[in-house]
Amino acid sequence: MQEKLDDLKKRLAEISDINNAAAVLGWDQQTYMPPGGAAARAQQLATLSHLAHEKFTDDTIGCLLDELHAYARSLPYDSDDASLIRVTKRDYDKASKVPPSLVSEIAHATARAFEAWRKAKAESRFSDFAPYLQRNLDLKRRYAECLGYTDRIYDPLLDDYEPGMKTTQIEAIFTNVKQEIVPLVHAISSRLNVVDNGFLYQTFDEQIQWDLGMDVARLIGYDFERGRQDRSPHPFTTSFSIHDVRITTRFMNNYFPAGFFATIHETGHAVYNQGLRYELERTPLADGASLGAHESQSRMWENLVGRSRPFWKFFMPRMKAVFPEQFKNADAEKMYRAVNRVKPSLIRVEADEVTYNLHIMLRFELENALLEGRITVDDLPEIWNCKMQEYLGITPPDDAHGVLQDVHWSHGSFGYFPTYSLGNFFAAQLFDQIRKDIFGLDRHFEKGEFHILLDWLRAHLHTHGRKFTLDELAKKITGESLQTRSFVAYLKNKYGEMYSL
Amino acid sequence: MQEKLDDLKKRLAEISDINNAAAVLGWDQQTYMPPGGAAARAQQLATLSHLAHEKFTDDTIGCLLDELHAYARSLPYDSDDASLIRVTKRDYDKASKVPPSLVSEIAHATARAFEAWRKAKAESRFSDFAPYLQRNLDLKRRYAECLGYTDRIYDPLLDDYEPGMKTTQIEAIFTNVKQEIVPLVHAISSRLNVVDNGFLYQTFDEQIQWDLGMDVARLIGYDFERGRQDRSPHPFTTSFSIHDVRITTRFMNNYFPAGFFATIHETGHAVYNQGLRYELERTPLADGASLGAHESQSRMWENLVGRSRPFWKFFMPRMKAVFPEQFKNADAEKMYRAVNRVKPSLIRVEADEVTYNLHIMLRFELENALLEGRITVDDLPEIWNCKMQEYLGITPPDDAHGVLQDVHWSHGSFGYFPTYSLGNFFAAQLFDQIRKDIFGLDRHFEKGEFHILLDWLRAHLHTHGRKFTLDELAKKITGESLQTRSFVAYLKNKYGEMYSL
Repeated sequence: MQEKLDDLKKRLAEISDINNAAAVLGWDQQTYMPPGGAAARAQQLATLSHLAHEKFTDDTIGCLLDELHAYARSLPYDSDDASLIRVTKRDYDKASKVPPSLVSEIAHATARAFEAWRKAKAESRFSDFAPYLQRNLDLKRRYAECLGYTDRIYDPLLDDYEPGMKTTQIEAIFTNVKQEIVPLVHAISSRLNVVDNGFLYQTFDEQIQWDLGMDVARLIGYDFERGRQDRSPHPFTTSFSIHDVRITTRFMNNYFPAGFFATIHETGHAVYNQGLRYELERTPLADGASLGAHESQSRMWENLVGRSRPFWKFFMPRMKAVFPEQFKNADAEKMYRAVNRVKPSLIRVEADEVTYNLHIMLRFELENALLEGRITVDDLPEIWNCKMQEYLGITPPDDAHGVLQDVHWSHGSFGYFPTYSLGNFFAAQLFDQIRKDIFGLDRHFEKGEFHILLDWLRAHLHTHGRKFTLDELAKKITGESLQTRSFVAYLKNKYGEMYSL
Repeated sequence: MQEKLDDLKKRLAEISDINNAAAVLGWDQQTYMPPGGAAARAQQLATLSHLAHEKFTDDTIGCLLDELHAYARSLPYDSDDASLIRVTKRDYDKASKVPPSLVSEIAHATARAFEAWRKAKAESRFSDFAPYLQRNLDLKRRYAECLGYTDRIYDPLLDDYEPGMKTTQIEAIFTNVKQEIVPLVHAISSRLNVVDNGFLYQTFDEQIQWDLGMDVARLIGYDFERGRQDRSPHPFTTSFSIHDVRITTRFMNNYFPAGFFATIHETGHAVYNQGLRYELERTPLADGASLGAHESQSRMWENLVGRSRPFWKFFMPRMKAVFPEQFKNADAEKMYRAVNRVKPSLIRVEADEVTYNLHIMLRFELENALLEGRITVDDLPEIWNCKMQEYLGITPPDDAHGVLQDVHWSHGSFGYFPTYSLGNFFAAQLFDQIRKDIFGLDRHFEKGEFHILLDWLRAHLHTHGRKFTLDELAKKITGESLQTRSFVAYLKNKYGEMYSL
């Protein structure tokens, strides 16, 4: 058995090298690549992805996994080897069910749809994008049929991003949270002026913003010996090894929170990957558990830490030191309130903590309705706008600020959106546990001692990599399944106080 | 036949994608990669290189090449298809003669030897490196035996870098050139003070040096839409596509020529790759003809252009504009003389045009003597020092400034050095032809019109990619085989005038 396991690991290591090489090419594509390089780069990425897929779906890997099945069951469920075999089997079953021709059809269709989306968004005309979206939907339906499902067609799509999670579970969670949030949004909407954030809109030198971002990333515990930060139009985190995890950021000269919180957010993702146990390197376990688990880390650092009162008690003096003019009338409390200001708005990525999940719920509901044929592509803009009015009390003036704002559907990524909310919920659930485990957490933060949180996250979450599903992790770490109680309480508590509700 | 050719091209395109992906990883490794990423990167590069080698030496490719042999002979020798089949067959025969186990042995031995060399150089102790060098020599002897040779064991090694070139040819050329250069060096050595370059050693702001380098690269015709410049400890050029060719440079704060001429040199390499015909993309023909051909381009722009009087007539005002204090007492003529100052020195990469090739000849002679067993590794330092005294009239004070200065032997790259000199000779030969073809070349340069040279090089040389050998190119472009007459005349003319010999 050891020989078969070694053979499997050797094959997976080679595939992991190819995937990591592709990640380097992707990083370069979004940071430094000159415009002329685009066509060749797309070709190189297609070749590497095809190679990795071909090697992974090789029959030999299927046979090895079958032969190792009983062996895996004889080991403790949470052992590295049992987890490797279990998770690889899960990936293999999915990958080998989809014919390469469909994979390639989807790749080509989404590449064209992305271009169409970009133009349609620039001209704010949904009808130009509609046929491409329809094609993506048709292909993803076929994809879902290949994978199979017993309940909902959304299930196998969701499973790509959040293994083990079911559509009905998310519906239940969302219904529950929505009941709590919508009244909260309405209550706050009548008291918007209680919080002032006008002083965040000033001129902020880009180099100073950069230095500040590096400073806060170091504070969190991002290891620059095993990572680096660069600039890109859309901030992202990528990883080529547990010892080479990189982030990017971008800045707005007239609004410092854009770059500052983007850096904290990506740092949250990056310290997760830097915290994986080195034994998982070059295996399919060398990543975060799921998109939801990953998002829990970025959002925890961004919101539960970076938008907390103790954080600003510690950090405000540094802020005033580098931007003395801009913040001469501000203090930690004013900053805390300003960076948490709630305002129903059109664009998801700019939404505050309270309204954010409503944007997600809307998309989740529309995706399901589309996939199940309850609405058509042509209905989308109108239904989008109705729901925006219903949940947030505002109506987009045009498609660019409405149904066309997100890139995901052009990529065919149906099932991706809910993971953002799952991240928010899981972050709050973890944080409740952390407050139980670490005495005086806020006082640590006030002194700039963030390593105490990172150490906890490493020991309880990061170390496991992809060994467990989000729900398994929730049970393992907090003793119960994923829940939204913590998140709702956090919102009510924080914003109830801030808006004197 | 068309079907077989298409099959071959498809396979070669995939291999080309893998090799180009590896080049991106190599570029990142030397520019931006954090230290922690080194081990994983080495692994990823090994995997990609193994994959490319495996795919290239696949029997199917051998069969296709055999089946296409007659077809290729029915086409014009210089057609794209005939050249593709001919050059690929040459590469295939070499690659398939070497067992993968030996390739892997060499890769591991040279990786260890490189580390040993680095330490040995830092401590200036050749004896620490000697056993690794011995091992590299033994492996490369075995490698040469696999490839086979009729005359000299050096032939198959040289052929890796300069296809078709023979050791005896180079010996004849070198003997001839040496007879001319050694007396020239001696004559100049007694008149060293005729040229002053003291004013080149001042403080030069790095950002201004960077801008100046970008300026000169643009002047030459480097297309930044299809390339970029970054910093690295050792300047290099790399290419991921004809439309993505990158250079790197580095600066010395107290001596501006270091960075300035490094940028021109790498730009010379880069415009060669940017000038390849796009039809060659994703084939083995998408590169320069050989290392010698490549070096002819970098050295032409660096020396025949960048160290010419007309260049400085044009460029000196720009130089004085950005470094007014430093060059307030200098003019074009003073600069021309300063950047061409001849001085026998210890380090090859810092050598002037006159003494440079003597450094190469010394290495070439030692490599041959080692491989043929006429000297032993232990003899090296002493023989090195003797030859330095004989050719240049100076003796290295220690191994770091002598036998340990170059990285090449630690990589096992025996046969590489002569291509530097071939590049110098070929550049001069081409330049004679260019002066015949372009009327008033110097006056064009004095006006900053360098595109006229680039256009000529593109049309006559760059466009061909790897279709021809260096000697074939020499005949095609200048009507005669590679010769050194032009180079010797150039040196005697330029330096005879400068030193009033």
